[in-house]
Amino acid sequence: MLEIDPRTKIDAVLGKLEKALTDGDIDAAASLFQADCYWRDLVTFTWNIRTMEGPDHVRDMLAKQLAAIKPNHFHQDPAHPASESGEITEGWFEFETDVARGYGHIRLKHGLIWTLLTTMTELKGHEEPKGTRRPMGAEHGSDPSRKTWKEKREREAAELGITTQPYAVIIGGGQGGIALGARLRQLGVPTIIVEKNERPGDSWRKRYKSLCLHDPVWYDHLPYIPFPENWPVFAPKDKVGDWLEMYTKVMELNYWSSTTCTSAQYDENTKEWTVTVERDGKEIVLRPKQLVLATGMSGKANIPKFKGQDVFKGEQHHSSQHPGPDAYSNKKVVVVGSNNSAHDICAALWEAGADVTMVQRSSTHIVKSDSLMEIGLGDLYSERAVASGMTTRKADLIFASLPYRIMHEFQIPIYNAIREKDADFYKRLEKSGFMLDFGDDDSGLFMKYLRRGSGYYIDVGASDLVADGKIKLVSGVGILELTEDSILFEDGRELKADLIVYATGYGSMNGWAADLISQDVADKVGKCWGLGSATTKDPGPWEGEQRNMWKPTQQEALWFHGGNLHQSRHYSQYLSLQLKARKEGIPTPVYDLQKVHHLS
Amino acid sequence: MLEIDPRTKIDAVLGKLEKALTDGDIDAAASLFQADCYWRDLVTFTWNIRTMEGPDHVRDMLAKQLAAIKPNHFHQDPAHPASESGEITEGWFEFETDVARGYGHIRLKHGLIWTLLTTMTELKGHEEPKGTRRPMGAEHGSDPSRKTWKEKREREAAELGITTQPYAVIIGGGQGGIALGARLRQLGVPTIIVEKNERPGDSWRKRYKSLCLHDPVWYDHLPYIPFPENWPVFAPKDKVGDWLEMYTKVMELNYWSSTTCTSAQYDENTKEWTVTVERDGKEIVLRPKQLVLATGMSGKANIPKFKGQDVFKGEQHHSSQHPGPDAYSNKKVVVVGSNNSAHDICAALWEAGADVTMVQRSSTHIVKSDSLMEIGLGDLYSERAVASGMTTRKADLIFASLPYRIMHEFQIPIYNAIREKDADFYKRLEKSGFMLDFGDDDSGLFMKYLRRGSGYYIDVGASDLVADGKIKLVSGVGILELTEDSILFEDGRELKADLIVYATGYGSMNGWAADLISQDVADKVGKCWGLGSATTKDPGPWEGEQRNMWKPTQQEALWFHGGNLHQSRHYSQYLSLQLKARKEGIPTPVYDLQKVHHLS
Repeated sequence: MLEIDPRTKIDAVLGKLEKALTDGDIDAAASLFQADCYWRDLVTFTWNIRTMEGPDHVRDMLAKQLAAIKPNHFHQDPAHPASESGEITEGWFEFETDVARGYGHIRLKHGLIWTLLTTMTELKGHEEPKGTRRPMGAEHGSDPSRKTWKEKREREAAELGITTQPYAVIIGGGQGGIALGARLRQLGVPTIIVEKNERPGDSWRKRYKSLCLHDPVWYDHLPYIPFPENWPVFAPKDKVGDWLEMYTKVMELNYWSSTTCTSAQYDENTKEWTVTVERDGKEIVLRPKQLVLATGMSGKANIPKFKGQDVFKGEQHHSSQHPGPDAYSNKKVVVVGSNNSAHDICAALWEAGADVTMVQRSSTHIVKSDSLMEIGLGDLYSERAVASGMTTRKADLIFASLPYRIMHEFQIPIYNAIREKDADFYKRLEKSGFMLDFGDDDSGLFMKYLRRGSGYYIDVGASDLVADGKIKLVSGVGILELTEDSILFEDGRELKADLIVYATGYGSMNGWAADLISQDVADKVGKCWGLGSATTKDPGPWEGEQRNMWKPTQQEALWFHGGNLHQSRHYSQYLSLQLKARKEGIPTPVYDLQKVHHLS
Repeated sequence: MLEIDPRTKIDAVLGKLEKALTDGDIDAAASLFQADCYWRDLVTFTWNIRTMEGPDHVRDMLAKQLAAIKPNHFHQDPAHPASESGEITEGWFEFETDVARGYGHIRLKHGLIWTLLTTMTELKGHEEPKGTRRPMGAEHGSDPSRKTWKEKREREAAELGITTQPYAVIIGGGQGGIALGARLRQLGVPTIIVEKNERPGDSWRKRYKSLCLHDPVWYDHLPYIPFPENWPVFAPKDKVGDWLEMYTKVMELNYWSSTTCTSAQYDENTKEWTVTVERDGKEIVLRPKQLVLATGMSGKANIPKFKGQDVFKGEQHHSSQHPGPDAYSNKKVVVVGSNNSAHDICAALWEAGADVTMVQRSSTHIVKSDSLMEIGLGDLYSERAVASGMTTRKADLIFASLPYRIMHEFQIPIYNAIREKDADFYKRLEKSGFMLDFGDDDSGLFMKYLRRGSGYYIDVGASDLVADGKIKLVSGVGILELTEDSILFEDGRELKADLIVYATGYGSMNGWAADLISQDVADKVGKCWGLGSATTKDPGPWEGEQRNMWKPTQQEALWFHGGNLHQSRHYSQYLSLQLKARKEGIPTPVYDLQKVHHLS
């Protein structure tokens, strides 16, 4: 029998898919999918971020969207040839809708579609001015009314938000707001980024001084300007801060630093926000059409309530307020919590000569940074991946092509391998009394991140200090109350403390909406982040995608943007295209708007 | 007969070359070259920038250098396959010397070497910390004496030049000093860049306000951080300024702004410079081992002497001092000169409503920017080149592989084509009385740039203003003298003027050495720039390479760095490697040190 090559197999399915879709034959289209199929769409078919699971779900989506979307021109990308491994054939393709150009990834199993990823690349007629479309800069010819680039930039900065109104306002100028702002600028969407700190990058600079990125450089690039090849694997916070500051400048963002948003209301009639900000002490009212909260995916600081917090005479603060160890070198410090920040803060305090105790209240997932890099990310985001021709864009798309429903199945073997490789390390740690876990289903760090955004530490050294008893540990016992100078535990133990750091994490991002807009709107929107996996801190029902992130919410014209540098980079693309389409009056029929099952 | 493929042909010659060189058989090596051969070496064989012309010259170089250099391990680069076109076979290869790794390009004609380019990539044991060698950033583990990245940077900035001495000092912090500074930082050569302006980029910001780069973006990338794909083709000066400022910051250069170098002396015994600078009004003495003048390849401003300059009551300044047109909107302005700056300044003044006259004293080469981009640079530096897989590195090497001796032969047809394409334009311009030329041998702009660094205008619109009489023209007649309010010409004409701008170019860079060091050292070093082509302003004898640029001079430990962004990028590589080798005590036997035929 003749072997059919992967390219031909993919061509055949894409051809049938295109015919079914252009014929409006939804049954024919659905019949091309496996029973256990996953179609993940990033705003091309659904104007939403949605994964259709199974042919019925595909059928439902197409029934509602197909007539408006008008997909066509499916063809494989000649630059990325199809390939085959075991029973899976995979390939890359370009396609169009009525209003956009898209890029996709497909995996076939037994000749039928197992996974399908469709993503929006650009809106027709609104392509970004880059590459062959880049601006000329110098305007050739002569013109007595000509303004220089600098004059135009200065005028825009002076007028936007004062005499002209931005189309979008982004609250929060960390990496999320900056990456989204850069994309919106390229798309010609007038935008103001509101940031409470003095300088772009201060959200990093102001954190505890030993902080470095926990994700490696290949995973962290911003859009448009990748880090140079001399950039550190794990960049120190101040270096990241400087990069964000220069990026904001050279990407020409309208960045209002030293500005605090005090309130925001949406007028359903005029379809306009009233956003009140205080800029350098002066109140300014902005009237954008769209409001994006990019105030940190971790949302507002969680500070647990204990009896006696008003009695304790030492210092108490949340980890987000912790200034670093310098002032505490001979002090007794208790850090409540056992995730990333808790470990980093404990290690820095120990290095500075403090007497440090970590209070672990529930089990924690620990993974050594080197093992995570090598086993967890190496194929997509590493020097090895770069050498093999992997680009950031391709890695992001492969990453995005794995359906959340089954992602844990791919993750479990990775963490089993890590557990085996680092068995001695884990044994030593457990011996110290530290409570370890690998997630409810042993799927490890990345699933914990997607489901709850917490519950882990990427070890860069602090775990050894715990195992060796240099960082003292109180584990598995509750805090009863605080006295004037100590913490009393439920088992009767007492721990003297000059400082208590609450490294106790953050609430859902809709907490910001409660503060800035109203509790009603926060409740209307509901919980942000998490997949509905019915695991710890991620209650069901199953959502299939992260709740409320980068996509329409129950509150018209309110959006949430955030996550790590990878997500800020990749998902800002889809959020920016959604906002641009709305600005241009392009129809954006949303399939299956986010439902609300939890308030926070 | 069997066709021999290009790869095999190149392999055969490289194999013979390697054998001859490792055997020390200089005659055998020379016999592999054509009679009209050119071997261009960028610091691998010669520790100099030299082109050997003809087999005897090759033989002479090898006789002096081979024993010390110990070249070997020649092999084709599998990533860049050999190719053939007409009688020319060309290929790319890697090789090593005793102390370095190199990269080369070879062209065969009739089976013999016609052109050979050998360039140094890195010094063994001193590879740059990039890619797989990039720093970790976060230091895993724990260490009570740990300093953060920020603390280390701040300490370095506070100590270098005060309590510790830099190995190199670069005078001039424009794109040249910055690009070289970045490479030296990567190589671990402690360096201070001294710049008189307040901020990096001010050397661009402070020039006339309509200024944009005359070279397109693909030609202009800096090392390590290329411009993003949204960067304008011809970047406005202030945007370039901002880029240089952020680059200086993120590349962590020790950049002393608001600092003026007042004098420099070399002590031949201690092999050390005494460089006196005034930093924010305070005198500081630096004691580097190496001194680089990167003060602008155009050197010091040329201001012609005319009778009556002391009598004229209006304003007079050199183009480098021209603030832009805003203050002159209803004034009579005479611009003396007809090159790039003269045209740009005239056009900006005309746009601002000034009454402008250009005084053309000698013929000028004009080429329209679009034609130059398309016909002159398009194969190597363009969006089209990028799309065809051309990288900046490869383009730079191809560019470098063309021997200066015959470069005009490749350039003449380009300018003939441009002359034909733009025939109407040139006719209109000549009709206005403008004196045109295409260089002494019709080889056009790039040869003029290499030979004399002047004599041309890349037209972005001003020529139409001249042709239309909007910019008035006085051409081919000398200036007799200035009166209180006018210029008198030799033909009796008188021109009233409120402002005279001398767009009259610059002297040789060794003029800076005269000012900062001594006239003796300036004379010992001699003229900088130019090839010795025996054409206007580039007297012979033939040098084969640009005089004194990026290579050892007759003054030990004194170096000249400069040129456009392309040259700053590419040649900073070779200059930085020369400095690094000297710092590490690696032998650097120089072949055929620059001879001095002209003092300025």
